[in-house]
Amino acid sequence: MGNPCYECPLPVAIPPEKTFLESVKLGIKETLFPDDPFRQFKNQPASRKFILGIQYFVPILEWAPRYTFELFKADLIAGITIASLAVPQGISYASLASLPPIIGLYSSFVPPLVYAMLGSSKDLAVGTVAVASLLISSMLGKEVNPNENAKLYVQLAFTATFFSGVFQAALGFLRLGFIVDFLSHATIVGFMGGAATVVCLQQLKGILGLVRFSHGTDLVSVMRSVFSQTHQWRWESGVLGCCFLFFLVLTRYVSKRKPCLFWINAMAPLICIIVGSVFVYLTHVEKHGVQVIGNLKKGLNPVSVSELAFGSPYLGTAIKTGIITGVIALAEGVAVGRSFAMFKNYHIDGNKEMIAFGMMNIAGSCTSCYLTTGPFSRTAVNFNAGCKTAGSNIVMAAAVMVTLLFLTPLFYYVPVVVLSSIIIAAMLGLIDYEAAIGLWKVDKCDFVVCMSAYIGVVFGSVETGLIIAVAISLLRMLLSVARPRTFLLGNIPNSMIFRSIDQYPVANNVPGVLILQIDTPIYFANANYLRERISRWIYEEEEKLKSTGGSSLQYVILDLSAVGSTDTSGISMLKEVKKNIDRRGLRLVLANPRSEVIKKLGKSKFIESIGQEWIYLTVGEAVAACNFKIHASKSNNQVADELDAHNNV
Amino acid sequence: MGNPCYECPLPVAIPPEKTFLESVKLGIKETLFPDDPFRQFKNQPASRKFILGIQYFVPILEWAPRYTFELFKADLIAGITIASLAVPQGISYASLASLPPIIGLYSSFVPPLVYAMLGSSKDLAVGTVAVASLLISSMLGKEVNPNENAKLYVQLAFTATFFSGVFQAALGFLRLGFIVDFLSHATIVGFMGGAATVVCLQQLKGILGLVRFSHGTDLVSVMRSVFSQTHQWRWESGVLGCCFLFFLVLTRYVSKRKPCLFWINAMAPLICIIVGSVFVYLTHVEKHGVQVIGNLKKGLNPVSVSELAFGSPYLGTAIKTGIITGVIALAEGVAVGRSFAMFKNYHIDGNKEMIAFGMMNIAGSCTSCYLTTGPFSRTAVNFNAGCKTAGSNIVMAAAVMVTLLFLTPLFYYVPVVVLSSIIIAAMLGLIDYEAAIGLWKVDKCDFVVCMSAYIGVVFGSVETGLIIAVAISLLRMLLSVARPRTFLLGNIPNSMIFRSIDQYPVANNVPGVLILQIDTPIYFANANYLRERISRWIYEEEEKLKSTGGSSLQYVILDLSAVGSTDTSGISMLKEVKKNIDRRGLRLVLANPRSEVIKKLGKSKFIESIGQEWIYLTVGEAVAACNFKIHASKSNNQVADELDAHNNV
Repeated sequence: MGNPCYECPLPVAIPPEKTFLESVKLGIKETLFPDDPFRQFKNQPASRKFILGIQYFVPILEWAPRYTFELFKADLIAGITIASLAVPQGISYASLASLPPIIGLYSSFVPPLVYAMLGSSKDLAVGTVAVASLLISSMLGKEVNPNENAKLYVQLAFTATFFSGVFQAALGFLRLGFIVDFLSHATIVGFMGGAATVVCLQQLKGILGLVRFSHGTDLVSVMRSVFSQTHQWRWESGVLGCCFLFFLVLTRYVSKRKPCLFWINAMAPLICIIVGSVFVYLTHVEKHGVQVIGNLKKGLNPVSVSELAFGSPYLGTAIKTGIITGVIALAEGVAVGRSFAMFKNYHIDGNKEMIAFGMMNIAGSCTSCYLTTGPFSRTAVNFNAGCKTAGSNIVMAAAVMVTLLFLTPLFYYVPVVVLSSIIIAAMLGLIDYEAAIGLWKVDKCDFVVCMSAYIGVVFGSVETGLIIAVAISLLRMLLSVARPRTFLLGNIPNSMIFRSIDQYPVANNVPGVLILQIDTPIYFANANYLRERISRWIYEEEEKLKSTGGSSLQYVILDLSAVGSTDTSGISMLKEVKKNIDRRGLRLVLANPRSEVIKKLGKSKFIESIGQEWIYLTVGEAVAACNFKIHASKSNNQVADELDAHNNV
Repeated sequence: MGNPCYECPLPVAIPPEKTFLESVKLGIKETLFPDDPFRQFKNQPASRKFILGIQYFVPILEWAPRYTFELFKADLIAGITIASLAVPQGISYASLASLPPIIGLYSSFVPPLVYAMLGSSKDLAVGTVAVASLLISSMLGKEVNPNENAKLYVQLAFTATFFSGVFQAALGFLRLGFIVDFLSHATIVGFMGGAATVVCLQQLKGILGLVRFSHGTDLVSVMRSVFSQTHQWRWESGVLGCCFLFFLVLTRYVSKRKPCLFWINAMAPLICIIVGSVFVYLTHVEKHGVQVIGNLKKGLNPVSVSELAFGSPYLGTAIKTGIITGVIALAEGVAVGRSFAMFKNYHIDGNKEMIAFGMMNIAGSCTSCYLTTGPFSRTAVNFNAGCKTAGSNIVMAAAVMVTLLFLTPLFYYVPVVVLSSIIIAAMLGLIDYEAAIGLWKVDKCDFVVCMSAYIGVVFGSVETGLIIAVAISLLRMLLSVARPRTFLLGNIPNSMIFRSIDQYPVANNVPGVLILQIDTPIYFANANYLRERISRWIYEEEEKLKSTGGSSLQYVILDLSAVGSTDTSGISMLKEVKKNIDRRGLRLVLANPRSEVIKKLGKSKFIESIGQEWIYLTVGEAVAACNFKIHASKSNNQVADELDAHNNV
C-alpha cells in the first residue's frame, strides 16, 4: 500500500475475508465469553491446567491454602456481626414469604456454606431477601393457601427454590448471564422501590396486630383490608411497633452519618428482638393482642429432598415462581457482588457467580431452605465489618448453627410486631427516590420505565410491574433501532472536520452537497424508515435551495461511520436509495463504510454499481472530491458557453 | 464562538437544551410521521387545507377530475387483462381457503372498488392471495371442519376478514405501519417459499383426484395422506393436470423471455379454464373421476353483515386468524405497492395504504368477500398491461360483475384439476431460491432466518415458521445491541485519521495511548458487557506492552462517534469505566461525544468529573493532546533526573 495523501486518498479497505467457521467462532467468543475467562489457562502445562480448572469452579481451593489467622480474625468479627442481622431478618422474611419462621433460620445455615466454597466474591453475605420472599408468597399463595394447606405450600416453596437454583446454574453454565442485563438500572430502581412499598404496606398487618389480611399485594386491596377492620386494630401492637421502628430508623441514621458506627445499625435488629422478647416476657402483653412467634423447633436443617413436589399439579406454578424469583435474586446478588468487588478492585465473573448461586439454592432446596441470594443490606454490613474472604459466611453459618441447636426456645416471646418493624426499616432504604429524580434529570424515558415498574408493582402485582418495565425497556431499545436518528452534517470552519449542524451551529453547509449521517446499524427494522427519511432530507434540501435560489444539489454523501453492521435489508435499502438518487440526477457518495458494511457491499456487487471511486475514507475527502468535480464541470460549462458565444458571433 | 484551530481546538458543543415537550413532539414526529405527510398542508388557506385533507384520505378525488380518455383506454386494457386472471385465481384460492368458489369471485368485485377510491398506488391490482388463503384454512380449519360445518366456517372466515380490516386500518390510523417492517426481507423470502411449497403439496389432492385429504399443511402429513391412498389416485385427473401445468409453465417462460408477450401469461389461466371446461363437456370425464366445480350461484355479492359471528365461541380464533393473516397480507400488499411505485417514481404512504387495505377488507367482510390484498402476480400483470391509474381495478370489478351476473353457469364444467394447476404454476414463482443463495453469500445470519422460516412452514405450520423467523430476527437484533463490537483504532500514516486496525492493517498504534471505538448506542443491555470488554482491552494492552517492553500505557481514548444515544445505565457504565481507569493510574479521554450523549454526560455531572479539557472533538485532537502531555512529562522527568544526577554528584 502506498503513502496516502489528500490528493490520492487511501482507498477504503475491505478487511481480509474470514472463513465461515472463524467468524462463527469469533461470534460465539464475543457473545458468550466477553471476559475471556480462559486466558489464565494459556501456555500452561496440563497438570497446572487441571488445578486451575478445579480452582476456577471451586474458588475456596484457591484462597483456603493462603488463609491466615489475621484474615480469620477479620472474618470472625464480620461473621458474628452479620449473624446478628441474619437471625432476625431470616425469621422476618420467612414470615413475609408465608413460611414458618424456622425455615428462615435454616436458610442462613446451608446456603452460606455452599457459597463460601463456590462463590468468588469476598464480600457477599448470603441470605434471604424481602422482594423474592414477597414474590414467593404472592405467586404461590395464589394457588395454595399457606394457612389452610401449609405442608403443600412449604413443599412448593422448596420446589420453586430448586428450580431457581437449576435455572441460575444453567444460565451460568451456558454463559447466558447477560439475560440479567436486560433488567436495566431504571427497572431495578422502580421495581425495588415498588416492592419495598408493597412490603411495608403488608407489615401493617403485623403493626396493627390484624389476624385476617388481604392475599393481594396491591395498594388497593391492602388498604381495603386495613380500613375495613379498624375495630380490630390493636393499639398495644401499634405503639410497640412505632417505638421499635423509630429506634431502628434512628440507628440507621446514626450509622449513615458516622460509618465507623456501622455496628450500631447492624446490631439494632438483634437488640430489638431481645428487648421485645424481654418486654413481652415481663408484661405478658401476648395475652393483650401482641402476637408472638411461639415455639421454634430445635435442631439443624432436616433433609427435604423427599419434599420436592415434582409430581404435584402445581408444578407449573412452582417452576414459574422459581424462574422469576431466580432471575430477580440473581440480578440483586450479581449486582451487589460486582459493586463491592469494584470497591476493592477485584474481578468477579458473573457467570461463575450464577453457578455458585444456583448450586447454593439447589443444595438449599434439599435441606429445608428457601431462596437465598446476596442481599445488599447484609453484604454492606459485612463489608463495613471488615470481612476479608467468604470465610465470614462460614462464621455466620456456624453462629446460626449454634442458634438452631441451642437458642431457638429463646425466640418464643419475640413479638411479631418487632419483625414487622425490622422489615419496614430495611425496606425504607430500598425506596431510592433520589435515584428516580436522577433518572428524570438525565433520561426521561428511563424515568418512565422506572415509574411504570413502581406503579405496576404497587397497583398491580409484583410480576406485572416487572413485566411492564422490561417490556417498555425492550420496546424503547427496539424503537431506537427502528427509528435511528439521521443528521445533516456541516463543515466546521477552517478544518476538514464535519459534524452535525444541530450540535455545532457553527458548522457550514457545503454548496451543492448534502451530507447525511446515519446513526445506528442498518437492519430490516429500520431500512424502510431510513429510505423514506433520506428521500425526505433530499426533498427538503432541494425545496430549500429552490426557495433561496442557491446552487442546485449535485451530490448526496452518506456518512456511514456510525453504521457498525447491516443485513441484506440494509444493503437493499442502500441500493434503492442509490436508484432514487440517480433518478433525481444526483450522485450518491459513501464515506467511511466500516468493515462489516464494506464486506457486504462488496459481496452484493454494490461497490461495482456505485463505483469504487465514489467511496471515501472520510467525509472530508468525499467533499473535496465533490467540490473538485463541481468546479471542473463549471469551468467546462464556462468554456462551452464561451465557445457558443464565439460561434454565435 | 471564535475561530477554531488545531492549537486551540473547538470545544465539544452541548446542543441547545430542548424543553421536555419539544423533545416529546420531535420524538413522536420522527417515530410516527417520518415521511412528514403534512408538509403539503403548510402555508395553505383553510379551505384548501380541507380539500387537501379529503383528497389525502380519498385519493380518487385527486386524480378523477384529471382523468382523460387516454388514461381510460390504458386502464381498460389492463383491467380486462387482470379480470381474465382474477376469475380463475379467485375460484382457485377460495378452494385453497376451503371456501365456496363463488366467494373468490365476490372478493374480486367489492374490494377493488373500495381500493380504487382509497388507495394511492396506480399499479396495485387487488385480489385474494394464496398464502393468506392457506393460512385461513389451516388456522380456522383446526377449530371448525369446513366440510362438516360449512356455514359456521364461512361465517368465521368473514369475521376473520373483518378483524383483519380493523387491525390494518387501526395500524394505519395510529401510524404504526412500521410493525410490518419487523418482517425482514429474509423472513419474507423464506416464509413465502415455504408457503408456496406447502400450497403446491396441497394441490396434489386436486391433481391426483383424491377425495379425502390431510387437514395438516406440513410435509409429513401431506405425504402420508398421498401415499396411504395410492389406490385412489385417478390417472385421468393426473394426466390432465400435468398437461395444463406444462402449458402454464411454458407460457410463463415465454412471457419472461419476451416481456411484450406478457398477455400470453396473463390469459393462460383463462384459456386453461375454457379448454378444460370444453374438454370435460365434450368427453364427460367428470363421470370418470375428474371433479368439476359444479353449480355457481348467479348474482352479485349478498350482504353478509349478519354473518359476522361476534357471538361465536370461536371468536378468539377468528380474531387471531384475522390479525396474523392481516399482517401477512399487509406486508405483501405494501411491499408490492412500494416496489411498483419506485419503478414509476412516485411516492406511496405506507400508513395510508394500510387504511385503504383495512377499509377494503371491512367492506369486503360485509359483502361476502374474504381477505384481499395486492398480490404480486396480478399487480405485475396490471403493470405490464400498461395501467395508468387505480381505474384498472374498477374495470376489473366491472368485468367480474358481468361474470357474476351472467356467466357463472359457464363454470359448471371447470375441472378442479385445472384450478390446482393454476395454483401450482403461480406458486412456483414464489419459491425464490436465487434470493436465498444471495442471502447466503451476503449475510449468513439472514440465510439462517430465511431457512428457519422455510423449514418451520414446511415441516411445522405456517404460523410456526413465521413466529420462529420473526423471533430469530428480533433476537439477532437484540443480540447485536447487547454485544456491540469494540475496535482498536490506529493512526493512518501521514494523516490525522484514525481507523480500526482490523480493517486497515496499515494503521499504527500510538505509543502510550489505547484508542477504542464503541460501535452502537450504549444501553442497559450492553452496558455491563462494554464495561467488561473495555477492561479486557486495557488488560490485554498492558500485558502486551509488558511482554514487548514497550512504553507503558498512560491514556485510554474512547471514540464515541458511533454512540448515537445512551441511557442512564450507559452513563453509569462510563462512570465505572472512569473509576476503573483512574484506579489503574491511567487517564480516560473522550472523543467526539454526540449531542444526545454529551447532554446526558452534562446532566449527570460526568463532564465535571472527567474535566471538560479531556473531551475532544476528534480522535486526532485527543491523541495530539495526549502526545503533548506525554512528551512534556518526559522532559520534566528528564529535568528531574538530571537534577537528581547533579545533586548526587
